[in-house]
Formats: sequence, C-alpha cells, structure tokens
Amino acid sequence: MMNFNAELVERQEYINRVLDAFLPAAEGRQKTVLEAMRYSVTIGGKRLRPMMMAEVYRSFAPRSELSVVEPFMAAMEMLHTYSLVHDDLPAMDNDMYRRGQLTTHAKYGEDMAILAGDALLNFSFETACKAFSGGVKPEQDVRVARALQVFGQKAGIFGMIGGQVVDVEKTGQPLSEEEIRFIYELKTCALLEASMMIGAILGGASEEELKLVERMAKNIGMAFQIQDDILDLTGDEAKLGKPVGSDEKNEKTTYVTLHGLEASSAEVKRLSAEAVELAKQINASEFLQELITYLTVREN
Amino acid sequence: MMNFNAELVERQEYINRVLDAFLPAAEGRQKTVLEAMRYSVTIGGKRLRPMMMAEVYRSFAPRSELSVVEPFMAAMEMLHTYSLVHDDLPAMDNDMYRRGQLTTHAKYGEDMAILAGDALLNFSFETACKAFSGGVKPEQDVRVARALQVFGQKAGIFGMIGGQVVDVEKTGQPLSEEEIRFIYELKTCALLEASMMIGAILGGASEEELKLVERMAKNIGMAFQIQDDILDLTGDEAKLGKPVGSDEKNEKTTYVTLHGLEASSAEVKRLSAEAVELAKQINASEFLQELITYLTVREN
Repeated sequence: MMNFNAELVERQEYINRVLDAFLPAAEGRQKTVLEAMRYSVTIGGKRLRPMMMAEVYRSFAPRSELSVVEPFMAAMEMLHTYSLVHDDLPAMDNDMYRRGQLTTHAKYGEDMAILAGDALLNFSFETACKAFSGGVKPEQDVRVARALQVFGQKAGIFGMIGGQVVDVEKTGQPLSEEEIRFIYELKTCALLEASMMIGAILGGASEEELKLVERMAKNIGMAFQIQDDILDLTGDEAKLGKPVGSDEKNEKTTYVTLHGLEASSAEVKRLSAEAVELAKQINASEFLQELITYLTVREN
Repeated sequence: MMNFNAELVERQEYINRVLDAFLPAAEGRQKTVLEAMRYSVTIGGKRLRPMMMAEVYRSFAPRSELSVVEPFMAAMEMLHTYSLVHDDLPAMDNDMYRRGQLTTHAKYGEDMAILAGDALLNFSFETACKAFSGGVKPEQDVRVARALQVFGQKAGIFGMIGGQVVDVEKTGQPLSEEEIRFIYELKTCALLEASMMIGAILGGASEEELKLVERMAKNIGMAFQIQDDILDLTGDEAKLGKPVGSDEKNEKTTYVTLHGLEASSAEVKRLSAEAVELAKQINASEFLQELITYLTVREN
C-alpha cells in the first residue's frame, strides 16, 4: 500500500528542484524583476500541472528519463504563475494576498508585477524550447515541436487567456450554463489538458490516446472547479486557508448556483470516476489515479 | 535607380496582409480582446522588424519563397506590439495616445489592455510555431527551432524585457554610460537583432555570418536610438508627429545629454556606415542598404 501523502510531497520537492534549476538567478541589472519572478513561483502552490505531466509521460514511456519533460514541467509552472501574477493586479482582481503571502504587485509594485508576469510568460516559452535536441534526436524534436504548439494554444486566446477574458468581462453579470462551461473549460481545464497532453506527446502517445488524455484532463479540470465552487459554500476556512462565501457575496454565478449542492457533488463524483477510468486505460500509475480523486473529491 | 519610397510602401502593404492572415478574426466570446489585439497591431508603425527579417532572409536564400519566414514576420510584429501595449499602461508610461490614436488601454480599458498584451505575446509564439513542418522537412525544423530560441531570448528578461525593467526602475535618476548602453542594447537593439538573426537562421546562414548579422543589427539599433534622442532635441514637431523636448523636460539621461549633439551625430553616422558595410558583406539588397541609412540618419 503506497503512502500517497509522502509520494505527493516527494514529487513536489522534486519539481521545486527542477524549477530552481531552470529559473534564472536573481542578479545583475535586472535583479528586482528576477527576484519578483522567483518570489511569484516560490509562494505558489501544489505543482499539480508539472506533476500530472510527469505522471502521464511515465504512463507512455515507463522506462525513460524525465530529462525531455523537465523543461516543459518548469515552463508549465512558470506559465501558471504568470497568470496568477496578472490576475492579482489592481486592474484585475486586485488581490493583496495569495496563500497568506503578499501578491507580487503588493510586494514589488504594479509596474514590476506586470513586467515579472510578462517575463515569466516569455521565459516559459524559452524554457520549453530547451527540450529541443538541435537535430541530434529528430524524432524527439518533432514531439517537442508538437508539445510546444499545444502549450501555446492551450495557454492563449483560445485557451486560458480566452477564459480569463470572458470571466473579467462578465464580472457582476449573471451567467448562462454555456458561459459557465466556456469559462471553466478555458480558464481551468485548458492548462491541465496542456500538461497531460504534453506528457503524452513527449511519451509517444498515438493520436487516439492523446484524445483520451485530453478528455481525462477536461474531466479533472471540471470536477476540480465545481468542487472549488462547492467548497466556497460549504468549506472549512481553517482547512482551506481562505475565507469562504465570496461567490455568494459577489453574487457570482457558479455551477453550484445553477444546479444546487447535491447535483454538483454528484457531478464531481461522476467526472472524477470517469477520469479514473480513463487513467486506467492509459495504464496510469496508482499515484495518478489517487491524485485525481484527491484533487476532485477534496476538502481543501 | 530604384524608387525607395515606393518599395517601402509595397513591403509595408505586403506585411500588413501577412499580419491580417495570421491574426485571428474578432468574433466569438473573446471578441473584445480579439478586437483589442487587432486594433493594437493595426494602429502601429512602419513594420521595420518583419521587413528587415525578410530582407536578411532573401540575402541568404535569394531563390526561396518567404513562406517559412512569414509566421516569424507576423510573430515579431505581434511581439513588438504587445510591448507597446504594456508600456503604455497607467502603471508604466501612462500614455493615452500613440501615433495620434488612442492607446489600447485608453480605448478598451486597463484590464483588457493587460490581457490583449498577454494574448499578443502568447500568440506570437503560437504563430512562430506554425513554421514547423512536423518532421516533413527535418532541416527546416532544426532552423525553426533555433529561430524560436533566438526569438524567445531576445524578447525576454535577458533581452527586451530586461531593458524595459531597468528603464522603468531608473526613471528620474541620472544614468551612467554603461546603464544607457545596457538599456539601448536590450530595449531597442534586441528585437532588431532577433529579427535579422531569424531571417539569417531560416535562410541558412553559418554561425560566422550569424554573428555578423547580429553586429549589423546592433549597430542599426544603437544608431536608431541615438538619432531618436537627437530628434527629441532638434526635431521638427510637424515632421515627427509628436512633441519634442520631452527628454529635457523629464531630465532624462540620454546618449545626447552625455556626449553632446555633435559627437552623437557623428556616432550615428559611424554606426550607420558600419552597418551598411556589414550589409554589403552578406550581399544585402540595395533596398536593405538604403533602409539602414533611412532609419538611422533620419528626420522623423
């Protein structure tokens, strides 16, 4: 019986080492913004996206080293971080704290936060490009190019940014079921899809397997987001580490306000179970299967 | 004798068509920001960077179609545009007009301008990735990967963004010669270097030729920027289409304030002549040679 929490922490520590290796040192004339880039990445999160990328890669290439995936793992976390840095800006959500720490603009000023976000986005592409072998491994380079295309598309105006745009524009307005789904699919699911698809592409998945991975990732993203809405209504502030009830206070339309708590909980369980089934089809590790349940049917 | 102005306009119109073909249509749920992206690109400039990229490519591959360069040409102009959109933001230069038109944040709001800038930066990488053949032309794909690396590096924290960071941080402070050179080389030269180097890489230049192209581009960038400083002091507002004397008013250190008008003019002529000499060494077109002089020893 594996110890899920110990394995989770081990993987997070490994990803933090990968990130540290790819992030530039905070020195030289650009020191302030390099510090802001490192700070933004360091205060962040559970490293779920690179973790899932690595797990899916291992499902398809169980005997390979992670060296070709690592640039993309680091790139994905940098990309995710830039999106949080810009989301927190005064002109956007105007948040001063994230996970109990000062947000980047609160600590370094608005101008440096805009530039640190731009720099992280740009550097995420620079970092992903480090996976190219320069023609030494032609087959690998074809996969890296394909992975880079997925990375760009899922992050851009027809992916994550597109979801953010509609979310910002519709703030304060009631949303339809279609609009909710559009925002969730782009803002939340797109980067999870990209992460898992890139793992699959680099691991040598077929087109059919790639579609399956995309579907699995979308399920996880939707379940994760609906569970977020549920926890905002029913969660324990101490466990969550953030105040609850903000959606209700802001009269925000969510999946829960449209369908109610019971149907939403059932949908999370359905999506999560389907994702686990799909994971089994690609021979995903026991860890990835447990991770899916951990992320979707969760209390924080 | 060629008609330089007619050729210039012809090339600009061609680049505008390329841009129009690569920019997504302003429709769907993300319509507002897609409109803002198109607006930002449309109000802009002389299309110098893609123009120089194409000219350098032609120097190395005179009998080839421009199809492999076009994605990079469009990408470079999108990248340049995003940098202007974010520079104009209230937290940065807070400019309401650019070339007589409302800036993106003045027209679409600060939130949409941040997102339109992010979307243009992201889409520039997506667009450049369209040059990959997917393994059909392996030699081309190696060049495209290399070009993409140069694109990322010259745009990022050790390129353009790095220059912008130092420029923003040092606003209102006197600058040393080294600081001035650092800002000019990164903020102004880096994208010109990238443009011309990408043209050279895609055209099959050797490493030695690539270094020569980088040096030529740096000369052009420095001459262009010093001439900008000169024109701010001596230019004709009617010809420039913008107010002069802003550097003096803002007590801004420039190359001219450090070295005086006469030495600065001599330096522009020296850099420009050296760039033309380097252009001749790569068998650059007569048009490119004239363009260098036009850009550096200019009145507007």
